[in-house]
Amino acid sequence: MITLNDIKEAKENVNNVVENTPLTKAPILSETFNSQIFFKKENLQLTGSFKLRGAFNRVAKLSREKRDRGVVAASAGNHAQGLAFSAQHFNCEATIFMPEATPLTKVSGVKSYGATVKLVGENFDEAYEAAQEFAQKNNKEFIHPFADDDVIAGQGTISLEILEQIPDLKQIIVPIGGGGLIAGIAIAAKSINPDIKIIGVVASGAPGMKESYRSQVPIDSTSVRTIADGIAVRDVTPKLLDIIIDYVDDIVEVSDNEIANAILFLLERHKLVVEGAGAVATAAVMHEKVEIEDSKVCTIISGGNIDVTMLSQIIEKGLVKSNRKMNLIVTLIDKPGSLMRLTEIFRECSANIVQIDYDRDSIKLEFGEALVTIALETKGEGHQKLIREKLKQNGYRFKHI
Amino acid sequence: MITLNDIKEAKENVNNVVENTPLTKAPILSETFNSQIFFKKENLQLTGSFKLRGAFNRVAKLSREKRDRGVVAASAGNHAQGLAFSAQHFNCEATIFMPEATPLTKVSGVKSYGATVKLVGENFDEAYEAAQEFAQKNNKEFIHPFADDDVIAGQGTISLEILEQIPDLKQIIVPIGGGGLIAGIAIAAKSINPDIKIIGVVASGAPGMKESYRSQVPIDSTSVRTIADGIAVRDVTPKLLDIIIDYVDDIVEVSDNEIANAILFLLERHKLVVEGAGAVATAAVMHEKVEIEDSKVCTIISGGNIDVTMLSQIIEKGLVKSNRKMNLIVTLIDKPGSLMRLTEIFRECSANIVQIDYDRDSIKLEFGEALVTIALETKGEGHQKLIREKLKQNGYRFKHI
Repeated sequence: MITLNDIKEAKENVNNVVENTPLTKAPILSETFNSQIFFKKENLQLTGSFKLRGAFNRVAKLSREKRDRGVVAASAGNHAQGLAFSAQHFNCEATIFMPEATPLTKVSGVKSYGATVKLVGENFDEAYEAAQEFAQKNNKEFIHPFADDDVIAGQGTISLEILEQIPDLKQIIVPIGGGGLIAGIAIAAKSINPDIKIIGVVASGAPGMKESYRSQVPIDSTSVRTIADGIAVRDVTPKLLDIIIDYVDDIVEVSDNEIANAILFLLERHKLVVEGAGAVATAAVMHEKVEIEDSKVCTIISGGNIDVTMLSQIIEKGLVKSNRKMNLIVTLIDKPGSLMRLTEIFRECSANIVQIDYDRDSIKLEFGEALVTIALETKGEGHQKLIREKLKQNGYRFKHI
Repeated sequence: MITLNDIKEAKENVNNVVENTPLTKAPILSETFNSQIFFKKENLQLTGSFKLRGAFNRVAKLSREKRDRGVVAASAGNHAQGLAFSAQHFNCEATIFMPEATPLTKVSGVKSYGATVKLVGENFDEAYEAAQEFAQKNNKEFIHPFADDDVIAGQGTISLEILEQIPDLKQIIVPIGGGGLIAGIAIAAKSINPDIKIIGVVASGAPGMKESYRSQVPIDSTSVRTIADGIAVRDVTPKLLDIIIDYVDDIVEVSDNEIANAILFLLERHKLVVEGAGAVATAAVMHEKVEIEDSKVCTIISGGNIDVTMLSQIIEKGLVKSNRKMNLIVTLIDKPGSLMRLTEIFRECSANIVQIDYDRDSIKLEFGEALVTIALETKGEGHQKLIREKLKQNGYRFKHI
């Protein structure tokens, strides 16, 4: 049984090290939804996510003896970084188990906080098992990423910061993976103000906690698949489900496309790098999964540890989808000046050429023809239509891909 | 003559609207340079840059009569957004002149704050001239982006916030374009503490203010070309040069590559979207252009309004340069299973395939061959070497591009 006092104690433990992250109004969303919407920016937390809070509180509460023996975890993500940082702070050895295929950036991120990394197993479950075995055999403390009272109490410190700054807040919208974050936030917030609404958000590709909440019994997902890897948790932990049933008012879900939209929105309009899991609460607001009209709402941006390659892809797809990028394949007569005449058309339309690929060797072509693949920066649907018409008027054969 | 009092008055004008942006320690740089390095995150400012401060103070100080007649500016960037926002706040009409080729996102950004946008001229100078003419003819107030005392005083409010939070700061590192930001920051900071060092940073592609500072006379650049478009200012304004000579301790420069590095660093490690101009101060620290050992330093992250296409390119180039991405062209025997065997090799090396392009039609090929262009995620130089060796051992012809 976690109480408000546990969370207040956790706040004292994490103070002075863990950042009280910015909590600021989101002007565009607020205007759109005729409401006051705030972002709690835990992506700007040290180690790039809220997970530091729980891990730090957990290590802070260990006895000197246990700290001296060291801590162990299995995680390829935010928990690993949070725990490694915390262990380093308390001069305690951390051993982190990660699946063999973990990207180098994640491995070196954890190593940079002085932790030992063990690459074991083909997937997370195998790494997890190896970590538990290792902890037991070596008498080290295994630190679970969410099914742990001290960890949950640590995450709850977010509510204390939010409600100190905005005491009359009406709703908090929170990502759900394992459930540790929402459990801590809900217990703290509802203990301070029982009227505050707590809404959870899962990714459609990892709906376990939502389905379990609906049916009031744990339902594990058969498989999980979402760009929000931080909340791609397959199995539902009964203890966390119980807390969530008791304290959470509703759970909604968002699709990968909606998450990608939110990531791009936060990037472009709020200058924030946010990972998939960190964007689900904002996605739920943007795509009207929650009732927020005329209210005072805080969405939790839980973390920013997104792979930059993924970020690049999200930008790329977002631009094409919002008609700000256009890919064309044009067949040209292969003679001097013909490419120039084509680019002239794009100049007339004020369409900026981003990329160009010229091929006259393909056997798909007649003799004397060349194929040009072109990526253009465009200004919306109308602009793209104009470009297509201009090309037609000038007799070009082309495909808009 | 701008005084500390002007800047304190500006602070009162901008308070309650302009954000007191986060000022937080940068742990990685601090450790690397054995120093305490802080970021002042003006990219998280409303409108995405510090320019709001100056514009807001300027409009706040206008008489009711002048406000009723409206304000005018020429800018395709941060000044436009800052002024549009400020004018809207004071119920004042804003007309912003932008070059015809301005990207739609910038136009709609300014329009979203209720300003009228006029697309005029082939370049900035033509838009600027048209704006001045329009202001004069219509008896509206023309608001210069930096050569203006109220604007400079507005930018100076950043120093008040910084020194309130860190009174014993030793150095502030500041981007320089026209010079309005550093002028305001330097006047405020030196008035509070004459011992504080103020270092300016220009982009190598727009070195006008650095060269003028060295020779103590205004030297305009013949042309400017840098990814830091926010500080790509060609001509040096004598009035600003005078302030900078009086108050600034040194000016250094950073290259586009160094700026791109800093953008990627801030994106990956600090979860911040920062534009080129916003990253130069951080770039100067990272690439050791300033002496900071054992000091207490603040770098100004001045803005975050970077085009996402540019951001995508910076990510892409950064990944290739740091050996986290590898592009290969492999010649295959075109028969069933040969692509599979190739992908098997990448799996064995734990190299993730990002993109694949299969071509058996090119006339560059012998009959029975196919060309595969592959982009791989890799874990560094050693990993790339391993992949090249594996391919050789298995008899593949390939080119690492």
